[in-house]
Amino acid sequence: MNPDITRERQNATFDVEKLTHILNGGPEKTKRRREIESMVFSDPDFKEEDPNFLSRSERYDQAVKKSAQMILKLREYGIADPEEIYCYKNMVNGNQHEAMGLHFVMFLPTLYSQCDPQQSKKWIPLAESFQAVGTYAQTEMGHGTHLRGLETTATYDPATQEFVLNSPTVSSIKWWPGGLGKTSNHAIVLAQLYTQGNFHGLHAFIVPIRDMDTHVPLPGIVVGDIGPKFGFSEVDNGFLKLENVRIPRDNMLMKYAKVEPDGTYLKPPSAKLTYGTMVFIRSMIVGESARALSKSCTIAIRYSSVRHQSEIRPGEPEPQILDYQTQQYKLFPLLAMAYAFTFVGQYMSQTYHRITGDINQGDFSELPELHALSAGLKAFTTWATNSAIEVCRMSCGGHGYSRSSTLPDIYVNFTPTCTYEGENTVMMLQTARFLVKSYRQAKAGQQLSGTVSYLNEPKHQRVQPQPVAARPTVVDINDLASLVEVYKQRAATLVDLAAKSIQQELQLRKSQEDAWNNSAVDLVRATDAHCHYVVVKLFTDKLGEVGDTAIHSVMSTLALLYALNGIKTNSGDFLQAGLLNVPQVLQVSVRVKELLSQLRPNAVALVDAFDHHDKKLNSVLGRYDGNVYENLFEWARRSPLNSTEVHESFHKYLKPLRSKL
Amino acid sequence: MNPDITRERQNATFDVEKLTHILNGGPEKTKRRREIESMVFSDPDFKEEDPNFLSRSERYDQAVKKSAQMILKLREYGIADPEEIYCYKNMVNGNQHEAMGLHFVMFLPTLYSQCDPQQSKKWIPLAESFQAVGTYAQTEMGHGTHLRGLETTATYDPATQEFVLNSPTVSSIKWWPGGLGKTSNHAIVLAQLYTQGNFHGLHAFIVPIRDMDTHVPLPGIVVGDIGPKFGFSEVDNGFLKLENVRIPRDNMLMKYAKVEPDGTYLKPPSAKLTYGTMVFIRSMIVGESARALSKSCTIAIRYSSVRHQSEIRPGEPEPQILDYQTQQYKLFPLLAMAYAFTFVGQYMSQTYHRITGDINQGDFSELPELHALSAGLKAFTTWATNSAIEVCRMSCGGHGYSRSSTLPDIYVNFTPTCTYEGENTVMMLQTARFLVKSYRQAKAGQQLSGTVSYLNEPKHQRVQPQPVAARPTVVDINDLASLVEVYKQRAATLVDLAAKSIQQELQLRKSQEDAWNNSAVDLVRATDAHCHYVVVKLFTDKLGEVGDTAIHSVMSTLALLYALNGIKTNSGDFLQAGLLNVPQVLQVSVRVKELLSQLRPNAVALVDAFDHHDKKLNSVLGRYDGNVYENLFEWARRSPLNSTEVHESFHKYLKPLRSKL
Repeated sequence: MNPDITRERQNATFDVEKLTHILNGGPEKTKRRREIESMVFSDPDFKEEDPNFLSRSERYDQAVKKSAQMILKLREYGIADPEEIYCYKNMVNGNQHEAMGLHFVMFLPTLYSQCDPQQSKKWIPLAESFQAVGTYAQTEMGHGTHLRGLETTATYDPATQEFVLNSPTVSSIKWWPGGLGKTSNHAIVLAQLYTQGNFHGLHAFIVPIRDMDTHVPLPGIVVGDIGPKFGFSEVDNGFLKLENVRIPRDNMLMKYAKVEPDGTYLKPPSAKLTYGTMVFIRSMIVGESARALSKSCTIAIRYSSVRHQSEIRPGEPEPQILDYQTQQYKLFPLLAMAYAFTFVGQYMSQTYHRITGDINQGDFSELPELHALSAGLKAFTTWATNSAIEVCRMSCGGHGYSRSSTLPDIYVNFTPTCTYEGENTVMMLQTARFLVKSYRQAKAGQQLSGTVSYLNEPKHQRVQPQPVAARPTVVDINDLASLVEVYKQRAATLVDLAAKSIQQELQLRKSQEDAWNNSAVDLVRATDAHCHYVVVKLFTDKLGEVGDTAIHSVMSTLALLYALNGIKTNSGDFLQAGLLNVPQVLQVSVRVKELLSQLRPNAVALVDAFDHHDKKLNSVLGRYDGNVYENLFEWARRSPLNSTEVHESFHKYLKPLRSKL
Repeated sequence: MNPDITRERQNATFDVEKLTHILNGGPEKTKRRREIESMVFSDPDFKEEDPNFLSRSERYDQAVKKSAQMILKLREYGIADPEEIYCYKNMVNGNQHEAMGLHFVMFLPTLYSQCDPQQSKKWIPLAESFQAVGTYAQTEMGHGTHLRGLETTATYDPATQEFVLNSPTVSSIKWWPGGLGKTSNHAIVLAQLYTQGNFHGLHAFIVPIRDMDTHVPLPGIVVGDIGPKFGFSEVDNGFLKLENVRIPRDNMLMKYAKVEPDGTYLKPPSAKLTYGTMVFIRSMIVGESARALSKSCTIAIRYSSVRHQSEIRPGEPEPQILDYQTQQYKLFPLLAMAYAFTFVGQYMSQTYHRITGDINQGDFSELPELHALSAGLKAFTTWATNSAIEVCRMSCGGHGYSRSSTLPDIYVNFTPTCTYEGENTVMMLQTARFLVKSYRQAKAGQQLSGTVSYLNEPKHQRVQPQPVAARPTVVDINDLASLVEVYKQRAATLVDLAAKSIQQELQLRKSQEDAWNNSAVDLVRATDAHCHYVVVKLFTDKLGEVGDTAIHSVMSTLALLYALNGIKTNSGDFLQAGLLNVPQVLQVSVRVKELLSQLRPNAVALVDAFDHHDKKLNSVLGRYDGNVYENLFEWARRSPLNSTEVHESFHKYLKPLRSKL
């Protein structure tokens, strides 16, 4: 064990294990998680080569192998609880993705929810036994977010009782689905339905794409890998071009809408609330943000405690880089954010399950708010985490660029969350739509509930060019409740500002749509402020649940840092709205620096509490034992370029060059 | 040609070619650049496979091949002017790096500048004929920025008249030098010199590391590749462990310091100003920022003009995504920044050459300021560009993640500039040291010149808790000169704030060093404001040189957007310092939105003017002809995973899985 990191742990003021339990939801959960994790890291079948040393084809091969092994082992161990499966897979996959991920996350769930009874009987056993391995093909090369824009067609032919599927243009080729390129033999294809000469919009079809025995693509199917990406190297995101592909009538998923043998179209019985899955996945992504960020902070903070560099006081030994105020200022606000997002993730998951319960009892009242909140928070947390991972990486100096640090892997595998499952800007605007609607309802005297109820409060400040000094100073910058209040007021102000912008555009005779587009920048900003308020509030609320005094104290410091640093970086908003005055903003800057020093002794313990096992972290810089340099050397020697002493390019180019000069 | 992008070009209000000439420094320069570029893209020897489809070893092989070819072709074509060589190599390398880069950038220049006459005679012909291929080994695994911390030793043995070089610890292993792993047979090694029992600090030694004929590592030399990185896949950044390696006495570079045969150490005649090269490279990096950013903007803006998605007005066809205000707000401020940094890069290069002229005439007066400015601007522009490339990438939706977009390549190959040649935070603090020194000189009544002369101005506002409304409103937010003034005042305010923070810490009886460290966050902020002021000022100054009315008009819009968006995102600073009042800040937000609409018709023309050839850009999304989708499909089909119809993993894992269930 590196002596620096040992000393850091000795200096901690709280019991790390107790904090881990809080993060896991209790000691029992910690215990079970560790049991499951130990099944993986003690399993010789999962001892594998670092994927960074493999070619793309080898990485894909390794991922398929792991997918197949996991299926067998989960059955063998009898692990069936979704949370435990998630934990097991997470440990196996480390910072990589699962080759057959979409089979489990989209193909099977869609079959479960959209097959009619007869279809279920046929398809579910095939899918559960992996005779049919599937994916979900919605996105096209030219079309993502906007479902009405999808071009793939499914035309019903009553003569043969088949649907004829086509990709009529290059831009209509299905593009991006994970597992589509090489792994799947079936795809659920989203296509525009035509029958009896009429258009009926988007429907889902089960399309066999490869022979179930030979795995060779079927006639009319042009399928393949879309090529290398930024990350996801082990996944065969694919393309699918359909050329007059005929499938039987009952390959259309018919639980709701139906096409009868003669081609008669039967509408789904009701305009169902179909955004349950979307809300679920977006809520999950908030948790993914917290995990990616807590991993990154673990690596950067542990490394900063063992790395020595330069000098603060001349003549003294090089200090740990964690002693530099600039390093603390890079990392501690992100550490605070990692805790904040962890608690927000827990809240979203709990809320999702609570509301799902309500929905099952016919109460849909909270769904719109959850829908809006999950969209906004998905964007807010993924954007913040995306930048934060890179700050962590760059805080490690040169070695952060080495693949051995794993920070590049965490980044490239996380960054797509900003785009998939709802492009972030689109998500921000969706939430803004809810905020503006709520704002108008409040104006109309309607009583709002939930996170937007502040829009009812009459006392929130209008933005006015009045002198800041004229406002009474009521904010205590050391009191979290008081800070929650200013964040709320800021959100209210910015929602108000965005709504007014729309109003002004309408007064200029713009259409509703143009007025919206011309206010979009303000709308995104309003959502950002709303989400920021929600995060500060949830972090503060969480403190109420923490009984342990020592942990409560360090968590309060983190929450305060999160809130005050947010004010520091957005001080214009708070000054502009007259919520804080200039001396207060100056005081906030000073206070942030004090909080950095205050957190310094607990920094390593706070990342230890996330309890990311070395095997899952897979980072030479982030090792628990802090023995970075020996292991960096050992890792480098395994680089494929070192497999020969003299690279063939010497004989091919360098030596001949001399004689040509 | 895609009709959307054709229409964009027709709508431009200015002559693109004329703007290209301004960016290149005149029509003659444009012409010559294009001539050189055409030599490359018409050369069948440089028709090559997309490196994204190659393994790391193949990429390295390709890079060595290109390096060797370039050496021959440059001689064949008689291209000898450094600027033209740079241009040629740039075109060949595209977004990749040169395998033998350090031979040209560090090995040869160090030989030229630090060999004594006898050494020159021996080494320079060897290096120029590539018998000796070299690199520059300074950084160690445990030591980067702080040169006094380096651990490698060179101990003189008078008995054999040799130096004995050693890597005494794991952390002392040389780590990172480009070309060290496989390519070089020599390295200039920086080591701590001991002779006659005395320590004399860091000196440079020429160390043969591989046999010049067989390329096999020499005895005592442990050399290899440091493993895969985030980018730079084609470069063999290497490690070097020295185990009692003996080199002759005259392998120490002896132009200045010397060790005599008996081991007597002779000090260098004067403490030379050695930071010329550093200043040069940092100034160059400012230009690199502009190039990386202008490429990224070219890709994102061209793609945004041909990509259609969603709807603004119901029932109408999907609009070009460039019509969304949020998309404009993501990209146009970055486009403005690309222009700003291009002009700053030109200024830095001109200033460097002017001051080098002064220095040659014995006038060193401007060097400290240039040194400080190059450090701060290197950090300011690389950080901003680093984030901006990712914004560009994410603005392209899913396809931005595809390697075919080249945006991932641009990012991973650019991001190390934030760390190498001076870690950015260290750079910011170096500039801050100059600012604080200048501030104190100004306080002491000394007259300052250059970019810091504003610290002399007595009228700049002190930060005071006075009501904003009490300040006279003199700022015209539509007048660039007025905006330069507020940026200047902001910088002055923040330098003042940082200097006061140091003062306060000293009053708390902290040492100078601790006071500095405890103010480091404020110091970085002060440098940031100073650099921001310099950039706004240089952009504004540049407008004075633009004669063409149409170009002047669009450049003014860009400059205004750059300045106002900077105020919008840092509004707290301007409000806090009482430089702007709340109505003005609100007005700035409105004005930024207006400027986005104003720039919209010229967006594509403005990126066209950078004149990045398709071959250099190598981006399917950024193609000049806008034909994205066909080419995306064509590119994907070449993915190595598509070389077989059925991947072997099907037979190895997926099929057997079924029988095991």
